[in-house]
Amino acid sequence: MRRWLLAMLLGAGPALADGPLSLSAMGSFHIGGREAVVAGKVVKEVTLVPGSVPVRVDPNGTYQVEQLYVHYAIPAPLRGKAPLLLWHGGGLTGVTWESTPDGREGWQQYFLRQGWAVYVSDAVERGRAGWAMYPEITAGEPLFLTKADPWERFRIGPGLGSYRTRTALPGTQFPVEAYDHFTRQLVPRWTTSDQAILAAYRAELEKLGPAVVLAHSQGGLFAFRAAQALPAKVRALVLIEPSGFGEPTPEALAALRDIPVLALYGDFIDQDARWPQIRQRGLDFYSRLRAAGGSVDVIALPERGIAGNSHMMMMDRNNRAVAQLVQDWLAAKGLWE
Amino acid sequence: MRRWLLAMLLGAGPALADGPLSLSAMGSFHIGGREAVVAGKVVKEVTLVPGSVPVRVDPNGTYQVEQLYVHYAIPAPLRGKAPLLLWHGGGLTGVTWESTPDGREGWQQYFLRQGWAVYVSDAVERGRAGWAMYPEITAGEPLFLTKADPWERFRIGPGLGSYRTRTALPGTQFPVEAYDHFTRQLVPRWTTSDQAILAAYRAELEKLGPAVVLAHSQGGLFAFRAAQALPAKVRALVLIEPSGFGEPTPEALAALRDIPVLALYGDFIDQDARWPQIRQRGLDFYSRLRAAGGSVDVIALPERGIAGNSHMMMMDRNNRAVAQLVQDWLAAKGLWE
Repeated sequence: MRRWLLAMLLGAGPALADGPLSLSAMGSFHIGGREAVVAGKVVKEVTLVPGSVPVRVDPNGTYQVEQLYVHYAIPAPLRGKAPLLLWHGGGLTGVTWESTPDGREGWQQYFLRQGWAVYVSDAVERGRAGWAMYPEITAGEPLFLTKADPWERFRIGPGLGSYRTRTALPGTQFPVEAYDHFTRQLVPRWTTSDQAILAAYRAELEKLGPAVVLAHSQGGLFAFRAAQALPAKVRALVLIEPSGFGEPTPEALAALRDIPVLALYGDFIDQDARWPQIRQRGLDFYSRLRAAGGSVDVIALPERGIAGNSHMMMMDRNNRAVAQLVQDWLAAKGLWE
Repeated sequence: MRRWLLAMLLGAGPALADGPLSLSAMGSFHIGGREAVVAGKVVKEVTLVPGSVPVRVDPNGTYQVEQLYVHYAIPAPLRGKAPLLLWHGGGLTGVTWESTPDGREGWQQYFLRQGWAVYVSDAVERGRAGWAMYPEITAGEPLFLTKADPWERFRIGPGLGSYRTRTALPGTQFPVEAYDHFTRQLVPRWTTSDQAILAAYRAELEKLGPAVVLAHSQGGLFAFRAAQALPAKVRALVLIEPSGFGEPTPEALAALRDIPVLALYGDFIDQDARWPQIRQRGLDFYSRLRAAGGSVDVIALPERGIAGNSHMMMMDRNNRAVAQLVQDWLAAKGLWE
């Protein structure tokens, strides 16, 4: 093997451990969104590349905005009975599901190796979905996350103030030595774009469903609401520590009746400032859903003897063990052969 | 074959025409960048997900900024003698190299099928690289492209005013029926970030080189300058209609002496308002480079009987024929076996 490749693969962890990955197709597309018109702005002459020919840049006109980016990889042979859509959380992109910050395989690769057609998306105004002029097109302003924020809020360290000393929760599974690398994948986000994001996810489901949706954190809001809008397009919902939930009306709850739901929770929740309440909101929603005839399985990882998981369990050291729980549940629901 | 997969693949063009793609590894990482500190801003309470627990968002603190995003796929068997790095142009991301807007395979897949280890990046402040607070961290302000702009500037239509009527250049190879879809991949860009982008590309070369760099448009600036800074890390440079070039000093030109260069140009240049000058700047640079002992091959596609290519030749209808020219040139330079 070539030296550069060997060095890269060693640096990237045990990528070869499972042998080659056979794909029948790989590619990407954008979906959803709308046109938006901006008027009344000054036309400029801009030199885009030093020394090059200036170009007239007229910011007035029509923009294509609020689309979703979707990367797909289809393994051969195919064993999942529906496409698996991976929806990331707030302040992040589809990179969440790719390699872990310390270079091990992520859930994208894990589920490809199990034979699932995997669709990794970047939500509206994140990553390769692009973002639009604000406040003209997207209301409000973007929110930027400091390096300290996820450490203290994603249960890597014990809350506010813990980043300064890089104090981690005892027994954390998060690869803390790669935390700096993890923070390179943070992106700005808005808090005003929920409806646009939901519309684009619905467009994805219309195109690819019936599908299994696996959503993280903020993605839970969109997964539940997209499924309530298009229940026939969703075979199952897997929620990784969702921070948002579905509409609680009787009709909206009834729409989820035939969609099995799995919700996973990591460790250190009881001692956190916010997570007990977020989890309780989830438990309340699941109770309502069950009362409406729905089926919800909740797994608290510590109760299964799996300790130390952060909010980013798809990149924790034991990310494969956690993925295996999801895989086993999907197989038990008859969605894998 | 499952109905949903068949429909997806038919919709995505002849993805299966070449049979399965065997990968020994696939994943991503970020590289480069720096920490930046922001101070003096107001702390806010923000509700990130409707109905959820408010969170204290303190914009003051340290940010990780100016990193590059890199996606890699390593085919088996490997035939390229060096990694192939694909660097996109201005207003775009690595999506440039993935599926074409009308769903055919892009150059990422083409070169994987030829046995190259392919690294597709998103430059600093574009796509999955994320972007930073401005003007506090990134000077100036972002530039947004209207839907009309690439149509009129990338030689799809005959210049200013041609988008309104969707008038295309006669015989264009650009898949004009998918132009709306193409505009979904546009992203904002700055004109003040060249040094940060160059630094991140240098970090990529330090990690992965010696490599072949294939760069489009604005990427040409970074490809030439990164190679001038790190000539031992570059085996060859392939430029697709570069809009920026290297330093013209004798030392900087001499640094490129042992690096073979290929520059490709499409059709309709003579009738364009800006491209004759941009091409001339390139031809002048190549002359200087040859005079300094360098080797530059320039291919004007129409002179090879390949007509109708736009600035986005990697997604034009004949994108495989154009890629084949690059592949043949790399093989002739001894970089493929």
